[in-house]
Amino acid sequence: MAAAAGVSITTVSDALNGKGRLPDATRRHVREVADRLGYRPSAAARTLRTGKSGLIGLTVTTYGDEPFTFTEFAYFAEMARAATSAALARGYALVILPATSRHDVWSNVALDGTVVIDPSDQDPVVSELVRQGLPVVSDGRPAGSLPVTAWVDNDHEAAVLGILDHLADAGARRIGLLTGTSTDTYTHLSTTAYLHWCERVGQEPVYEAYPAHDPCAGAVAADRLLARPDRPDAVYGLFDPNGTDLLAAARRYGLRVPDDLLLVCCSESTVYANTEPPITTLSLKPRRIGTAVVQLLIDAIEGVESDHPVEQVIPTELIVRTSSQRRPPRTTVSPPRGPEEE
Amino acid sequence: MAAAAGVSITTVSDALNGKGRLPDATRRHVREVADRLGYRPSAAARTLRTGKSGLIGLTVTTYGDEPFTFTEFAYFAEMARAATSAALARGYALVILPATSRHDVWSNVALDGTVVIDPSDQDPVVSELVRQGLPVVSDGRPAGSLPVTAWVDNDHEAAVLGILDHLADAGARRIGLLTGTSTDTYTHLSTTAYLHWCERVGQEPVYEAYPAHDPCAGAVAADRLLARPDRPDAVYGLFDPNGTDLLAAARRYGLRVPDDLLLVCCSESTVYANTEPPITTLSLKPRRIGTAVVQLLIDAIEGVESDHPVEQVIPTELIVRTSSQRRPPRTTVSPPRGPEEE
Repeated sequence: MAAAAGVSITTVSDALNGKGRLPDATRRHVREVADRLGYRPSAAARTLRTGKSGLIGLTVTTYGDEPFTFTEFAYFAEMARAATSAALARGYALVILPATSRHDVWSNVALDGTVVIDPSDQDPVVSELVRQGLPVVSDGRPAGSLPVTAWVDNDHEAAVLGILDHLADAGARRIGLLTGTSTDTYTHLSTTAYLHWCERVGQEPVYEAYPAHDPCAGAVAADRLLARPDRPDAVYGLFDPNGTDLLAAARRYGLRVPDDLLLVCCSESTVYANTEPPITTLSLKPRRIGTAVVQLLIDAIEGVESDHPVEQVIPTELIVRTSSQRRPPRTTVSPPRGPEEE
Repeated sequence: MAAAAGVSITTVSDALNGKGRLPDATRRHVREVADRLGYRPSAAARTLRTGKSGLIGLTVTTYGDEPFTFTEFAYFAEMARAATSAALARGYALVILPATSRHDVWSNVALDGTVVIDPSDQDPVVSELVRQGLPVVSDGRPAGSLPVTAWVDNDHEAAVLGILDHLADAGARRIGLLTGTSTDTYTHLSTTAYLHWCERVGQEPVYEAYPAHDPCAGAVAADRLLARPDRPDAVYGLFDPNGTDLLAAARRYGLRVPDDLLLVCCSESTVYANTEPPITTLSLKPRRIGTAVVQLLIDAIEGVESDHPVEQVIPTELIVRTSSQRRPPRTTVSPPRGPEEE
């Protein structure tokens, strides 16, 4: 470009950016040459100049080699919606990246920083981004020494212990767990909390693990759990579809919910208010998380002294429905309500 | 980079991309120099090489100069979720761009193509993208000569005429419209359909227009509409929050819904199933639209001979609730249901 215009690179830059003290004729000449060549400064060059691209990334890096449409899961969809709103409100574009792609998507966009959801403990994407000096905010506290700028998470251990106590209070004697095979901290911390609880109350653990990103694997794992000789009388499922997975498996084995089997799953889906019976769910508050990760990321990008801590714990909410409330035992008959007597 | 390594540009490219027939020493030398310089091919250069970046854009370009967080509106949120799922399922990243930004976000990402939502009739963003040779698929049929690759839309005229007939059948004599001031085709076609219908049935039009991207302006416009001396006895609101806007205005003027005022609004929000009374809504089926626009865009990018037409009309759905069903007139008393007589 500079060669074609017969001027220096600095002159090209000043002319195109309206900077410096150049004769009008020079500025006009450079612009004409640029137009003729169809010249547009590359993303990298522009970012070097302005320092910021206005683009931030969002991705799930953990699961498998197949395209994983995480937005089909209610948690990710709500989290991504909140993250998008927060980015747009501050004038940033949000790039939702596939975990894997035959395109080199990461190199084709000049990101100012990235949100990663559920990074695994040796996440190579996170390591590479941090090596490049980009801020990385994690949805899910990073395991081990994963060097993120900030993270937002729930207290998964406390949430699981709360659910197990809730099920035990409702009469459960052997509580099972449907968990995942991946190494993200959500799965890891939740499973560990379950195992500790079992140890504390003296219950033999009863669990099945499956690859949670595979929408079919949950049904198979639910079936396997209820087919065991040491069948649980209550189950907590860590993933969104586990409520319907477990309900279907219970029907196959002639188990009534909640009479024979108590159920709770972690889900943001409103379908569980209307299943037969309605299923108790744990909400992780993904909208609050999506907003928080983007605020922390943009604060880090802009070098804003943040009022927020760089580790934010968002409270969970247990929405108790029929599936985890055992009816009064059938032997106890409450008297029918008659007309009031004086 | 080539100068620093003392080799040709082709040699640099071949060495870094593992192509060509180069001595191992040369390849190693070029890579060492690249590492030393922190050299990364720019987004533009990479895209020139591979032809595709794997990134597609999604944006609303029409509304105003302020950051407009369109994902806060249920239509855009559902549409964007479906678009994201469709992109990820095909291994593409989706870039959700702000309408305006102090960053030059468009230049910092090498998009293969873009989805634009509700482009206005002389949309400069669409024109510029098309000039650059990028496929553009529009959510909303383009007005005039806007040169898009493909579009997906509803039949807004038919939908509005259906709603007006529905309200007239329920007894409305003077139907009002709450509409927008922007020049996108949704607003334009819906308003035109209303005006034609009024002309056909001989009703004087009664409408208020407001800037629809401003979440506060709807309440003011609803109030203005119901304060008019020629107050309508039924209103159709074109935008998501109009149901609650109109319900609040009706309460202020002591109007009962549906007895004194029939209401319908265009919305994807489920809140209208539980308002007091529940409000009849028109659904534009944003999930089907979001999937369709991305499929059409990726087909165009990949040069796939599409089975789909490049103009797709998605059917709308009128969800009839209490707000548009007038109760039987009070003068007619139906006989109480007594025990069956022989």
